[in-house]
Amino acid sequence: MATINENYLNLQGSYLFATIARKVNEYSATHPEADIIRLGIGDVTLPLVPSVIEAMHKAVDEMGQAETFRGYGPEQGYDFLRQAIVDGDYKSLGLDIDIDEVFVSDGAKTDVGNIQELFSEDNVIAITDPVYPVYLDSNVMAGRTGKAVDGIFENVVYLPTNAENNFSPALPEKHVDIVYLCSPNNPTGTVLSRARLTEWVQYCKENDVVLMFDSAYEAFISTEDTVRSIYEIEGARDVAIEFRSFSKTAGFTGTRCAYAVVPKEVTAITKSGERQALNPMWNRRQCTKFNGVPYIIQRAAEAVYSPEGQKQTRENIAFYKENARIIREGLESIGLTVYGGIDAPYIWLKAPEGMTSWELFDVLLEKVNIVSTPGSGFGPCGEGYLRLTAFGSRENTIRAIDRIKTLTF
Amino acid sequence: MATINENYLNLQGSYLFATIARKVNEYSATHPEADIIRLGIGDVTLPLVPSVIEAMHKAVDEMGQAETFRGYGPEQGYDFLRQAIVDGDYKSLGLDIDIDEVFVSDGAKTDVGNIQELFSEDNVIAITDPVYPVYLDSNVMAGRTGKAVDGIFENVVYLPTNAENNFSPALPEKHVDIVYLCSPNNPTGTVLSRARLTEWVQYCKENDVVLMFDSAYEAFISTEDTVRSIYEIEGARDVAIEFRSFSKTAGFTGTRCAYAVVPKEVTAITKSGERQALNPMWNRRQCTKFNGVPYIIQRAAEAVYSPEGQKQTRENIAFYKENARIIREGLESIGLTVYGGIDAPYIWLKAPEGMTSWELFDVLLEKVNIVSTPGSGFGPCGEGYLRLTAFGSRENTIRAIDRIKTLTF
Repeated sequence: MATINENYLNLQGSYLFATIARKVNEYSATHPEADIIRLGIGDVTLPLVPSVIEAMHKAVDEMGQAETFRGYGPEQGYDFLRQAIVDGDYKSLGLDIDIDEVFVSDGAKTDVGNIQELFSEDNVIAITDPVYPVYLDSNVMAGRTGKAVDGIFENVVYLPTNAENNFSPALPEKHVDIVYLCSPNNPTGTVLSRARLTEWVQYCKENDVVLMFDSAYEAFISTEDTVRSIYEIEGARDVAIEFRSFSKTAGFTGTRCAYAVVPKEVTAITKSGERQALNPMWNRRQCTKFNGVPYIIQRAAEAVYSPEGQKQTRENIAFYKENARIIREGLESIGLTVYGGIDAPYIWLKAPEGMTSWELFDVLLEKVNIVSTPGSGFGPCGEGYLRLTAFGSRENTIRAIDRIKTLTF
Repeated sequence: MATINENYLNLQGSYLFATIARKVNEYSATHPEADIIRLGIGDVTLPLVPSVIEAMHKAVDEMGQAETFRGYGPEQGYDFLRQAIVDGDYKSLGLDIDIDEVFVSDGAKTDVGNIQELFSEDNVIAITDPVYPVYLDSNVMAGRTGKAVDGIFENVVYLPTNAENNFSPALPEKHVDIVYLCSPNNPTGTVLSRARLTEWVQYCKENDVVLMFDSAYEAFISTEDTVRSIYEIEGARDVAIEFRSFSKTAGFTGTRCAYAVVPKEVTAITKSGERQALNPMWNRRQCTKFNGVPYIIQRAAEAVYSPEGQKQTRENIAFYKENARIIREGLESIGLTVYGGIDAPYIWLKAPEGMTSWELFDVLLEKVNIVSTPGSGFGPCGEGYLRLTAFGSRENTIRAIDRIKTLTF
């Protein structure tokens, strides 16, 4: 008699974006005339850049000819892409990453969801609050969190992250084994300073904590001296796994390519106290349960690193960053308080006094037909905030802000 | 102090194909002149068919234009592909599968590796011996198998599958909760009869067992009245999850698309005895840890179902089936005993009396420079067999058989 993984029963409600989609669909159904502008889910809108398109056409043609056809590729990704990543994202920062520390995948969501499989069930995880839900939910499913009481999981250490601490959470006071950090941050759009990340790495080294560092939004950094890779911090190779994605860097949300860096120095221990490197464990995990990213898609990702690809994708990033500026300054001009949106495509809007996240979400949807993401969906400390994204078209971004300006709070 | 998932330490050696690759690389390095023919890993060699190439070029162009660009798609796959699957693979057999029972993914390996996450750690799994290693290894990693003694895991029920039982394993004598079956079979190349599958479904219904049915090689079936989908068997919707792939059907091993069918009737129970449907659990799993298959790849898979796509892919299958015939008949002509290769791209060669699988592997590699897959790599009962695949070029297939004919055993 097969029995289910009951940890699934501890998951809270349905996945945030699915809930939003349902609300929007219901509203659309009853208001078919509504001209809805979506600033909710962090999905890009600009088409893939010409360099990427060209590379894919070429790769498609290769797949149609016997001499150049590719079957199974390496589970970890082709060397041409891994080398481009090493050179383009790390050597360019003066960092040495070995090619076999880079694991190409179909998404940072997949990687951050799967990485927890390498750890025993009794590890204590720390997540910021608010947080990208996948860090939490993947650990709930694995039984590492216990049950939730009023939305708070008994075995999770939450790190409150809000305006009061300048969106830079304090180091954990309780014992933890694994910490998830995201900078530039989803959902708050803020970044952790170099000094602060140095403290985090130091803390992880001293306490033998593994740091899961999600830098999917790295391409949006423009403030000087902001950390682009955790490996810029001394000692990070001993404790940190870094997650990167082409989704936001190059508009690959529907094209699907990402990578994880697992330095050979990162270890965890067995119950008997022996050190075990995580790099070969992740390699084994990927070889067993994954068959690599499509050849065509890996060629697309490689093209992002060509001089033309870099120029074109940076233009797209600049476009979104201008949207972010328009949103920030527009909201500030009517007296609203906003955070983020400078080194990230997300603006974290403080709801007017007395309003909850979902109340503000409903107002924006129903009064001015704008889809946002309620901050409370990212954790209890997100309550009273709303996430807006800079990924819309210029026209829609301007129209959305103009509409919000008509509201009185 | 982070601790590892010690179940990984129970994994046996490295992944089979990685070991073969290492042996072949070592041989090539010391014999650079060797003209090696690969009939080992089950990887296709014919290029993608014109219909698929055309569909991908079109989709690439769509991704390059703002009006037709696609960002995040549904985690479960686009409706256009799910509908094509429902119509092309099921309605064509007179079977009703709901579109929301179909989950598009990047590979059957991924799906069969991940599906075990839905079950509690104490489920007992049954696998055939020999077996596709992912069924076993993914359960080892999850702690469901216990430790191995001489390669045999203490908590796994093995179903010996060999010439003595006509490659149709007996129903389990011990208690099991989950059974993995693969037909047409990898590695033996044989199929389970309709009568036998009817007994299996009946057994699963009577014992509340979930049946994982891998039919990745369905396209190779030509023998009349052979079951193409487990849902042809009455009652299978209550117990069976089916895994299909475009890898072998349409040469997608480097293009990456597959799907799982999870009927709404399939359930497992909670510890307190409540029934829980697996379809919404799998949906939640996929929504949390996966972001869908690239749009371009889904259009490629859709094109497989067009009349032209069907004609072209069937021609490729026929080509490989002719290779299989050449291998089978060639080996039989020198007195060797072979199985499979009629409804599958795999030929299961019985090693001459007294030879182990790896011994025969080494002979073929070193004497005639042919890469095969040792049967023992698929389980203890695979000892004394070797898997050959029909995916080579016609020329290489003929040359390989001619070379083997020069050997005396």
